Amino acid sequence: MNAIEEKFLKLGIDNAPGQEVRESRSSEGLPQEGASLPGIAVDFSHGDVNADAFEPTPGALEAFVQGVHRGGSQAYTEYRGQAAIREKLALDLAAFSGHPVSGAEELIITPGTQSALFLAVASTVTAGDKVAIVQPDYFANRKLVEFMGAEMIPVRLEYLNNTAHAGLDLQQLESAFKAGAKVFLFSNPNNPTGAVYSPSEIGQIAALADKFGATVIVDQLYSRLLYAGQPYVHLRGASEAGDNVVTIMGPSKTESLSGYRLGVAFGNARIIQRMEKLQAIVSLRAPGYCQAVLQTWFSEPAGWLADRIEKHRQIRDDLLALFRGVEGVAVRTPQAGSYLFPRLPKLRTPLQAFVRELRSRASVTVTPGTEFSPHASDSIRLNFSQNHEAAVDAVRRIATVIEEHRLA
Amino acid sequence: MNAIEEKFLKLGIDNAPGQEVRESRSSEGLPQEGASLPGIAVDFSHGDVNADAFEPTPGALEAFVQGVHRGGSQAYTEYRGQAAIREKLALDLAAFSGHPVSGAEELIITPGTQSALFLAVASTVTAGDKVAIVQPDYFANRKLVEFMGAEMIPVRLEYLNNTAHAGLDLQQLESAFKAGAKVFLFSNPNNPTGAVYSPSEIGQIAALADKFGATVIVDQLYSRLLYAGQPYVHLRGASEAGDNVVTIMGPSKTESLSGYRLGVAFGNARIIQRMEKLQAIVSLRAPGYCQAVLQTWFSEPAGWLADRIEKHRQIRDDLLALFRGVEGVAVRTPQAGSYLFPRLPKLRTPLQAFVRELRSRASVTVTPGTEFSPHASDSIRLNFSQNHEAAVDAVRRIATVIEEHRLA
Repeated sequence: MNAIEEKFLKLGIDNAPGQEVRESRSSEGLPQEGASLPGIAVDFSHGDVNADAFEPTPGALEAFVQGVHRGGSQAYTEYRGQAAIREKLALDLAAFSGHPVSGAEELIITPGTQSALFLAVASTVTAGDKVAIVQPDYFANRKLVEFMGAEMIPVRLEYLNNTAHAGLDLQQLESAFKAGAKVFLFSNPNNPTGAVYSPSEIGQIAALADKFGATVIVDQLYSRLLYAGQPYVHLRGASEAGDNVVTIMGPSKTESLSGYRLGVAFGNARIIQRMEKLQAIVSLRAPGYCQAVLQTWFSEPAGWLADRIEKHRQIRDDLLALFRGVEGVAVRTPQAGSYLFPRLPKLRTPLQAFVRELRSRASVTVTPGTEFSPHASDSIRLNFSQNHEAAVDAVRRIATVIEEHRLA
Repeated sequence: MNAIEEKFLKLGIDNAPGQEVRESRSSEGLPQEGASLPGIAVDFSHGDVNADAFEPTPGALEAFVQGVHRGGSQAYTEYRGQAAIREKLALDLAAFSGHPVSGAEELIITPGTQSALFLAVASTVTAGDKVAIVQPDYFANRKLVEFMGAEMIPVRLEYLNNTAHAGLDLQQLESAFKAGAKVFLFSNPNNPTGAVYSPSEIGQIAALADKFGATVIVDQLYSRLLYAGQPYVHLRGASEAGDNVVTIMGPSKTESLSGYRLGVAFGNARIIQRMEKLQAIVSLRAPGYCQAVLQTWFSEPAGWLADRIEKHRQIRDDLLALFRGVEGVAVRTPQAGSYLFPRLPKLRTPLQAFVRELRSRASVTVTPGTEFSPHASDSIRLNFSQNHEAAVDAVRRIATVIEEHRLA
């Protein structure tokens, strides 16, 4: 096997969220283990943006159409995004994060937050570097580090037995920095658990990064969808220097705007400059017309966000109650976002086969925990941004299949 | 300087097309060399998609809006793009290129052709590899190779003194393969010159690639915009095996759909599979709603494409006549696409300063030839997909500034 074949062998996507359609093609004809469980199909691998679930922000499509009518100036922006939109976002993100942002130098618009993550990692990590990564965390983080030829140093998140903290093992983080980790990459709120890092955890992450001169890339994709009373500290304001942090956000999740592929990264101007250079050869720019949709971001109608959060809280609480009614399931109450990450009781079936059967028999798609941590082969992730009743009914079907597969 | 700083130092974008807005900010206050030349501002660094120039394909916006209304199924597609759209495109691209394409396995939809290029290079080239690159050619090709840590082997294109052929130095290409080049990356039609490779050149490229077991990535972005009677041979049909070619196209240029950021790559299934794996961590997928616009591609109204080509031919011929009226200018007649690449007479001003002055005094933006070849510091590139009269007037202003700067 040559170097490039080896590189891509590690880059599996068969179990990645959204790819189930390809897998089911290859597993057609496998024996069915039981009778099918009827119900509306629910794909928990991502949020549902249809009219009976969560629709895009009002005004998004109108802003897009206006962008099309502006023509060339909207189609061909600077690689880092249209200047006027960056200036508007810089003000919004400064107010949101409590820390100034220069729209000219410290912000880049990218085709989705995935692109922002890729560019941030590729602009700070090179072959042979060490990178600290939380387990569990967003599935692409590990793959990004591996693709750069860098070495991952895992840092444990004890999310199940903590409520006051997210549960980061700060000693492991310090050890990672001592071992030479130049970059720490994590999501807050944590994907897949919905844990929010406490003020003291954020303070200690900032202090450690400052002490060891490390760069921190923090993916805050769900930081607007905080459940009532939940405190949230932005890392970029907590760091002494404040200059070693890149923050990534986007309007894809809370706002159901994924179909437009928009993200932003803001922070250290030198890293943002590198990200723009790289974007020039990776994708040129975020789709010009889509960029116009960012004018609606942080400018939603009054009450719209609170209402969206309250609807998600209701679904969350119903699904938590159902999972907690299943003997042996352990699940943390997400403090933010729309992910649940229940740990299942011991099953007589390997996780991949269990997940496949859920899909084929119960029309329920979930993401196996192993996408998020090698130690999570007992867990599944659900994005509960779905039609409320359909989601409740689907989790009832999951409970039924768990009972059938429970190790006696 | 550390490894990553060095890596990004090579990745300059200051003179890249579209970035002039940032450069002008940093060069404010430079002394002006002469009186300003009045006229409508023309940005030849890219095509103009406004109503008085070339508008997007009819039906594109409607297809997008229908995509938005389809909701989740359009927002969250497979990473390689929505299956039904891939099937439609596979038929169209097979008919266009005269060679079958499997929509399931041999095609990926990307966020723009730039992404397709990045993914194709990153899926076939790794650090230390050798890659043959044409000079001059699309500015990102060289940067992509350098970013991968690979070594570029230049192959000369003698575009000025050829009409029957594009002018590729086939002996240099063979030497590059002999020296170990695993990949050959080129655009056809050539960007920036508009040269189309002749049937015999394509046949010899295919034979050499087959002989040396090399992969060829061919960027055919402008291959639909062929001027009357121009023969065009698709490399993918010319190769013996046909299995070592990745072809890149997109609806951004001829169809003026750049604002939607759409591209496709098709060819070798193994490479397409790698590209999808990589897309999963680089950008997830082309914007879901934008993918819907691809339904209009190769399905334009009857006569639409012929009319668009004829309008471009008229602009091309007027600009060629103007440039050829300037003593010492040499310019090839583009056989396809909307680029002109005139070689200027000897000037007393370095190219960068000349280009800056064109912009500041004459409101004309062009791209310096050095973006395309280190040997083209005497040339400029113009994308003439513009309002006809404005373009003619702008080239008259370029001629005036050339006369002022001519070396006596």
